[in-house]
Amino acid sequence: MPYRAIWIRDDRRSFGIIDQTKLPHEFVTETVGTVEQAAHAICAMRVRGAPLIGATAAHGLWLALEADASDGAMDKACRLLESTRPTAVNLLQALGQMREALSTLPPSKRAAAGLALAADMADADVARNRALGEHGWSLLQAIAGRAKGRPQRALQIMTHCNAGWLATVDGGTALAPVYAAHDAGMPVHVWVSETRPRNQGAFLTAWELEAHGISHTLIVDNAAGHFLQRGEVDVVIVGTDRTTAVGDVANKIGT
Amino acid sequence: MPYRAIWIRDDRRSFGIIDQTKLPHEFVTETVGTVEQAAHAICAMRVRGAPLIGATAAHGLWLALEADASDGAMDKACRLLESTRPTAVNLLQALGQMREALSTLPPSKRAAAGLALAADMADADVARNRALGEHGWSLLQAIAGRAKGRPQRALQIMTHCNAGWLATVDGGTALAPVYAAHDAGMPVHVWVSETRPRNQGAFLTAWELEAHGISHTLIVDNAAGHFLQRGEVDVVIVGTDRTTAVGDVANKIGT
Repeated sequence: MPYRAIWIRDDRRSFGIIDQTKLPHEFVTETVGTVEQAAHAICAMRVRGAPLIGATAAHGLWLALEADASDGAMDKACRLLESTRPTAVNLLQALGQMREALSTLPPSKRAAAGLALAADMADADVARNRALGEHGWSLLQAIAGRAKGRPQRALQIMTHCNAGWLATVDGGTALAPVYAAHDAGMPVHVWVSETRPRNQGAFLTAWELEAHGISHTLIVDNAAGHFLQRGEVDVVIVGTDRTTAVGDVANKIGT
Repeated sequence: MPYRAIWIRDDRRSFGIIDQTKLPHEFVTETVGTVEQAAHAICAMRVRGAPLIGATAAHGLWLALEADASDGAMDKACRLLESTRPTAVNLLQALGQMREALSTLPPSKRAAAGLALAADMADADVARNRALGEHGWSLLQAIAGRAKGRPQRALQIMTHCNAGWLATVDGGTALAPVYAAHDAGMPVHVWVSETRPRNQGAFLTAWELEAHGISHTLIVDNAAGHFLQRGEVDVVIVGTDRTTAVGDVANKIGT
């Protein structure tokens, strides 16, 4: 059964997440009914990945407004959610976008508008990742075309940490081109680094790729240089927590 | 209470080891009374580290000769011990040295001679490591003298895996100069990489340094490049499983 990494529940008073701390051993979903629970889900890394953290914060702010839509309550909820994780810019961007749109509305309209906006932001993330996947796939095709020495070999892709669908609402960022390539029939093989200290590569990326039927090998972080040195890797694709104006990328240690 | 990593027990019919698979959580010693137990201790990595594997094999061959000192039994014991670990040359060297010395003796004298030779080889390892420590310490002094920009800072040493006293009979190889420097009063700080997948850095090196009162920081393997890039490391010192005639070194993945 396909899942998004976050979804509004049918009662429209709560949203669902996957408790990612239990993967890969157990697939457990969790219902989030308050802004405090949303903040805790981010702090405890039940949800992680920059785009998913942003979406969870937006949904959490919506839940806060369902309980109390006053300016003071909105301020307090934003401060709570902002304090959860320092990693990614998406958290602050999502809260800023929600706040800008909702603060001009009368309190009585904020909860319904917050629900609609959080849902739109989630859909926008999925659409963005799909576009990213299509664009990245054309790059992978170009790289595969250049790897003429080994025409029989699947394109060898290395990634680090998890930038798959679990890190987003759906579709993934760095893995989006890999899914697009695989789904289009291009033979790919992914080298997945364990990603110490929290093992997101071993626990999340390998699980995602397995579930999608994509050939992959889990390696210790230590071994990445070995495989690169031996020419076993055609392309490396990773997420980015922050990207500077000149294109420098800050990402998980080891990137 | 100071320990060697291997010792002949007072009954002179068995030897003692530390079950290194239980470190750092428990310090448990084990009595090895047969060549089969010695082989198992190596296979199961209760002892590890090239010099200690060599010493354990020598002691194991002695125990085999206590039970049956015939040529056939010696051959069989050597084959068993040779098959335990492919890593290091020390295993084959130690068995070769024992065999060469003992095979010329009549069987009735082999067990006693084997005991004496295994003990001598263990003492030789300790003496070699002490010399290695003295020699390496003079190199560390030269490096510390050159690091003039930061005269207040302890010498920052990075190591990988475990090449401390637990990897040898006593004294350590790569860590021997670090112990020598610390014992002589030189301020040192050691960056200890976790060393996936078996965590010898986290479980053994950090434990050793802690027990010896040497300042150290445990890092994930991933982070080594970061600290090197920032100039936080003055010198890197690691073990070597094999060294070629031109000085190339093969050692644990990630070295």
